[in-house]
Formats: sequence, structure tokens, C-alpha cells
Amino acid sequence: MIKAPENFIDTAGVRQVFAEAREGRRDFIRSAFAAAAGVATAGMARAATPGDGDPAILELPEHSRGLGQPVVTDGYGKPSKWEANVQRRQSPGLTQTRQASVSFAPLQSLFGIVTPSGLHFERHHQGWWDIDPSRHRLMVNGLVKTPRVFTMDEIMRLPSVSRFHFIECGANTGMEWGNVAVPTCQYTHGMLSCSEFTGVPLITLLELAGADLNKGRFVLAEGADGSSMTRTIPMSLVRSGEVLVAYGQNGEMLRPENGYPLRLVVPGVQGVSWVKYLRRLELGDQPWGTKDEAVHYVDLLPDGTHRQYTSIQECKSVVTTPSGGQVLLDKGFYSISGLAWSGRGKVKRVDVSVDGGRNWRTARLQDPVMSKCLTRFNIDWVWDGKPAIIQSRAMDDTGYVQPSLRQLREVRGTRSIYHNNAVQSWLVQESGEVKNVQVS
Amino acid sequence: MIKAPENFIDTAGVRQVFAEAREGRRDFIRSAFAAAAGVATAGMARAATPGDGDPAILELPEHSRGLGQPVVTDGYGKPSKWEANVQRRQSPGLTQTRQASVSFAPLQSLFGIVTPSGLHFERHHQGWWDIDPSRHRLMVNGLVKTPRVFTMDEIMRLPSVSRFHFIECGANTGMEWGNVAVPTCQYTHGMLSCSEFTGVPLITLLELAGADLNKGRFVLAEGADGSSMTRTIPMSLVRSGEVLVAYGQNGEMLRPENGYPLRLVVPGVQGVSWVKYLRRLELGDQPWGTKDEAVHYVDLLPDGTHRQYTSIQECKSVVTTPSGGQVLLDKGFYSISGLAWSGRGKVKRVDVSVDGGRNWRTARLQDPVMSKCLTRFNIDWVWDGKPAIIQSRAMDDTGYVQPSLRQLREVRGTRSIYHNNAVQSWLVQESGEVKNVQVS
Repeated sequence: MIKAPENFIDTAGVRQVFAEAREGRRDFIRSAFAAAAGVATAGMARAATPGDGDPAILELPEHSRGLGQPVVTDGYGKPSKWEANVQRRQSPGLTQTRQASVSFAPLQSLFGIVTPSGLHFERHHQGWWDIDPSRHRLMVNGLVKTPRVFTMDEIMRLPSVSRFHFIECGANTGMEWGNVAVPTCQYTHGMLSCSEFTGVPLITLLELAGADLNKGRFVLAEGADGSSMTRTIPMSLVRSGEVLVAYGQNGEMLRPENGYPLRLVVPGVQGVSWVKYLRRLELGDQPWGTKDEAVHYVDLLPDGTHRQYTSIQECKSVVTTPSGGQVLLDKGFYSISGLAWSGRGKVKRVDVSVDGGRNWRTARLQDPVMSKCLTRFNIDWVWDGKPAIIQSRAMDDTGYVQPSLRQLREVRGTRSIYHNNAVQSWLVQESGEVKNVQVS
Repeated sequence: MIKAPENFIDTAGVRQVFAEAREGRRDFIRSAFAAAAGVATAGMARAATPGDGDPAILELPEHSRGLGQPVVTDGYGKPSKWEANVQRRQSPGLTQTRQASVSFAPLQSLFGIVTPSGLHFERHHQGWWDIDPSRHRLMVNGLVKTPRVFTMDEIMRLPSVSRFHFIECGANTGMEWGNVAVPTCQYTHGMLSCSEFTGVPLITLLELAGADLNKGRFVLAEGADGSSMTRTIPMSLVRSGEVLVAYGQNGEMLRPENGYPLRLVVPGVQGVSWVKYLRRLELGDQPWGTKDEAVHYVDLLPDGTHRQYTSIQECKSVVTTPSGGQVLLDKGFYSISGLAWSGRGKVKRVDVSVDGGRNWRTARLQDPVMSKCLTRFNIDWVWDGKPAIIQSRAMDDTGYVQPSLRQLREVRGTRSIYHNNAVQSWLVQESGEVKNVQVS
């Protein structure tokens, strides 16, 4: 893609520039530097000692003079103390206990597509555990010739794959169904994260147990925590090899909040199906209709019926900068940045509007664009200081276009909790303050 | 790539299986489950209560009965307590102070290609700092029309890109030049990490300062820490847009140990050029020949001369599992896994030998394969219990093949410190213990 020079610095080039230097050109550079340094070091001095009356006096900051901290070998590295505000956060009052709760990822502070594991959103049904992996077991039973119980060691010896995928809770953006003005994109869209997952394709484990792949059409996945989370996974997804029994996340073992030591990875499907603390997989010939499939994670439609098993997260996007709660300090150039994703495949295009949907421009998509993975988009914008409504609208490679809130409500009504993938609107006010608005 | 079903679970399918269930097939499944559960839950009971004499008694572990921990909102998530041994480590005696030192990434415990930022290798010349970003400034001067001093806010408003790249210290694997048997791949190859970096192309900042792109052929990058690290970057690399002034790493701000709030990202080039705590960029017309370019990071050749500016990290690979210090518990199936990379572009192929280089098989490369980025490779292996020497040999898309230690020494001798990219050999002993060996 990008061509590197044959040599980092080639010998002929070095010879030439030194020849030029002998001819006197070097002096020119010296004086240019002196002039520039006069201006610039003054700026740095001011930075180091604010309030100093004389910008010409250069006082180096302590970190340019002293001896720093030793290498971090007695633990695990942490973010800068200046970033302490970048945290996942619970929405006050959203749930009654902190065990059956949610913490949202700070999307407005993140870059690129990888979510740091320390900021990955959490959704627990009965709290999280730090399970001893040497005692953890995974059972494979049902329509199999030989039911099997695997240790972690046995699983980790098998051929593995690593893939980047997003995970989104089915209830993400759920509060936007009403007219509740959730203040920031952390709370509107923060039940969304993206990691490199490593694990064994589920189909491999089924084959090791001698699964009956003709009769077996659905897999029940069961977690080991107190909520006994159970979900039905169709074999059509499993057969493709993309459903993983995963132990790795962003290079290391899963975090306890995310299902250590074993969780299911079901790309494109809502997070509840990515069963954490995975302890059992049962192959059957029908969907199980478990509590979390019959009572929860269903969509109440305008006619009073419920949609069930609408587990695939449809194409969606959100602008993360500028977004609700942020403040633009002045007019001028900004880089509008956001995330797009689809549970059906790859993001193909993202359009951005700054006038509430009247005009749209196509954003740049950041490589690599991967299937069922977050895609970062960016687009240039010069703010004229007047009110502006910023929106993004994604399209995936099936041709599906993210709906407006009005389009979505026409089909789904307003009484759903789950599966809201409507276009999000952020109002930039004249003051520069950005707030969540609903644009029909 | 992978085709999802039109619907997660389609209505017709649900109707059909419930019809089948009414015909009595459901009872069959129930009895099959009961039989399977009898075997399998016994296994789980043993796991939960080791030493229990009666495997038929099912006693659920506490985490399946109790209430777990609340969501983590009062801080930043941490790895499992069971993973406390997975740390970056200092090599005892390698350096005299812990400020001018190295900590190595635990490659043998990592999956995929992303290095968790808490385990990213460190190389400090005078310790690390946690610099206040509101006071940090970046000066751009030299052959520019208007020298500029940028605040972090100004830099973060500019158009940014995010890219996955490896960073490797030029001294990585340096101890292997001699016959020192470094015990683990953490110490042989652990000055290697890979992240998604986000920042502004360096060329953008030069253009904003009105750089003279005809005369300007080299950029000096200078760090703000006490070591005053200065390195020459050729404009041929900068022009391509791939050199970044980066603030983001794996989704969040850089870590203090890795240059917070600003570091240079020079894809494919040795880590010392990725100047941390970046405070100044000067455009000039010749290489600077700084202390760290003239005295350090040069290669002593057999004829007594030094090679200078050999900064591009040539194609290299290492098997991380199994690797030195690990133990194979028994014969049978293993998945050999490792990392390959090239400072020239993409990894094209990795071959693996288990007999010390007599026979080679081609490994699977894990998607996505990106330029100047780590690539994970895997290959199946059945260990027969006899001594085996495991090696990997990478080839990049320029056709360059990673040399054997003998080939490398023929050109470079044995007195170098830097730029050792030879094939690494791990001996699996009959005991299952794996150790570092040098195979000529």
C-alpha cells in the first residue's frame, strides 16, 4: 500500500547532503533554526511555567531535566492520571442493583476501533465472577455421539482463530425509543465495544463430540454464573465457523467482567447471546425459547405482538465527536468522527449531515473494514458558529441503509426496548455546547 | 466473507420444529439430554469440589449459586487475578538502573496481534513521565515558512487516521548474537508490541507550517524527557503519509510509558525512532547524526566498520507456543502459534519446521494481514514425544526471506547488538520441557 524507501537513509544521499553542507548551506539552516527557536521555545516556556511574565525566559519543565519513573515490572500498566475521567459509567437509576446492571463504554473519548479491555462495556444479570480456570469445565452434549467435558487446557491446545468483532447489547440506544434526552453518546450508544477475540470455532468442539450435524439445528449455550444465562444459537451460523468459544480478548485472556475464562462469540448477534462463563453447549433440533428469549430481548410492536429471535444487530452508526456533552471552543475546522457497524457484514458507506438530514456528504472509512466489526469514519467540517444538527447514516454490504428515527418508528412504534438502530442526532448550539436531540 | 443467514432464526423454521416436537420427537431429545447430563455434570461436580469421593453428587460452585461482583464503574478494569503471572518483565542485570531499562512483553502468553497496552514493552532512556497534556506543546520549525507551536487541542482537531502497526526495539533479540541462552521468548523477542495507533500524519503538520518540501529532506524528532532523544526521519517516509504524530493507542490515549501525550509512529522502523513525549519536529536538508544515531543503534560488522541508519526492521518471525520455558504435558495434538512481521510491508508466507530446518510446512496466516503489522500464524502438529526443534521462517511481500542464524552471521559477524532477525529455534525435549537452542 505504502512504499518504503529501499534504504531508510541511503549512503549516496548522506554523501550528497554533507557535500552541500561544505558549500555553506548549513549556515543558512542554523540561522533559520535560531529564528524559529526564538519564537517557539518561548511558547514552550510559557507552557511550562504559566503566569510567567517574561516569555523569553526559557525554563524547562521538570520532565526535561529530571530522572523519570522506572520500568513498570511490578504490575500491569495503567492509563495516565490525566485520563482518570475516561471511565465506563453506570447510568444512575437505570437498574436497581449494581449486580444486575450496565456500565457504558466512553465512546466519546475513544479512537480507532479497538476498545481497551479496561473500558469494555459491562452487562451483568447477576454480577461478575473471577472463576478459577483450572476448575472450569465446558460440557458438550445433546445430539452428539460422545458427550464431552473439556478442561481449559484441552480447549487451548486446539486450533484457534483470532478475529476482530463488535459486540453490542440488544438494548443499546434503548432509551431513545421514547423522547428521553440521554445526555452523551456514552449513555446512548455505550453498550458497544470491539475487540480482537481468540478462540476455537464452536463447530470444532461439536465435531470432537461426534455431533449429528443433520439432526442438530440449534445449540443451547449456558453460562456458569448465577443468572444461568441460556441462549439458542442456530447451526447455520455455527457451520460457517464464525461462532467461537473464546478465551482471548485483545491479546490477553478475557477479563472477568467479560466472561473469563470462556465466553461465546457470536459475530453480528446481540451481546446477550455471547454467553459468559460458558459451561455447557447442547446440540438440539429446535430453539429452546428460554426465559431470556421469550420474556426479554423481544420487540413489542405497535399491534401488541412481540417479535422474537431478532438477534442480529442491524446496520447502525453514531458520531462520537462532536457528541452530546462536548463543547466546541470556537468556530473553524473540526474532524467529525464516528463508528459504524453491521451484524450482516461489512460497512459499505457512511454519509454525514450537518444540517439535520437535508444534505449528506460521504465520510472516509478507515481501513481495515472488517465484517461484523466496528468501522471508524471521519469527515472534515468547518463550523460557522451557527446551530448545526450532526447525523450519520450507515449502509452495509447487503445494501441495507440505517433508518431515520421516523422510519424506524413507523414499523416498530415507540414501545420497544431493544434493537434501536436509528440515525442519531446531535445539536451543536451557538454556544458550542452539543446536546442530544430527536429529529423526526 | 462469512455469509449470515437471512434471519437469525426464521419463522418457518421455528414453526417446523415445533410441529416436529408435537409429533413426539421432543421426548427423544429429553432422554438423550438426561443420559448426557449424567456423565457430564459428574465431571463438573468433580471440578467444583476436587477430592470429593462421589462424582455422582452434583455440588454447584459458588459462582453458580451466589450474587457476583457489581459493575466496575469506580475505576478501570483489570485482568483476572488468575493471570497475575502475565506481566512485562525486566531482564535481571541487563541494565544498571531501572530508569534506563527495558521491560519485555510476555509474548508467550499473548493471542492474536493486539498487545494489551498494560503489557506493551517499555524501553526508557531516562525513565517515564506522566506529562500534563494541557501544558504540552509541539513545535514545528526548520525549513518552514511559519514555525508553529501546537497545543494538544489543536492537534486533536486535525484530520486523523488509525492504523495497526508493530513496534520493535532495534536491540530486540540482541542477546542471541552470542551464544547466550536466553530462557524464554519474552526475553528473546519481547521488545515487540503491536497496537492500533491514532494520530495526525506528520506531513499535515509540516504543511500547516508551510514546509519547504523541495529543500526539506529530513525531519528531526525530539522528545521532551530528560534523555532528549533525537532521531532523523527521512522525508521519503513522511511524504507517503504513514508517519504519524500519534496520541491514541488501542482506542485510548497513549500510556505514559509509551510517550503520553504524543509520540511519533514510524511504521516499519525500529522503536527508538518512535520518539516519545514528542515536543519538536525540525525540517532540515541532511541527517542529524545524533548521539543515538552515531554511537548507539549502529551495527558493528566483521571488518570493524559500523553500519549506520539501518533503521528498518527486516522480516522476522518467532514461534510463541510452544516456546522456551513452556512444558508440553503429554504427546499428541498441539497448535503451533507465532508472530511474523516485516518493516518493508506485509508478511507473505511463514514456514514452520519441527526438525531443526530439514523439512518445512507452510503455516496458516490469520486475517487481517496488514502492512508493517504483526501477523499471527498457526499450524497443526502432533508431537510423538521425541526431541523436536521448532523454527519459523517468514517471507515478506518484497520476496525477502528471514535468514538462518548462520546466514546472518556470515554477513554480520557476532559482535552486533542490533537488528538480529534470524530464525529462532526452540528444542522440545523428551520431558516436554522447551528450551532455547542455537542451530547453525
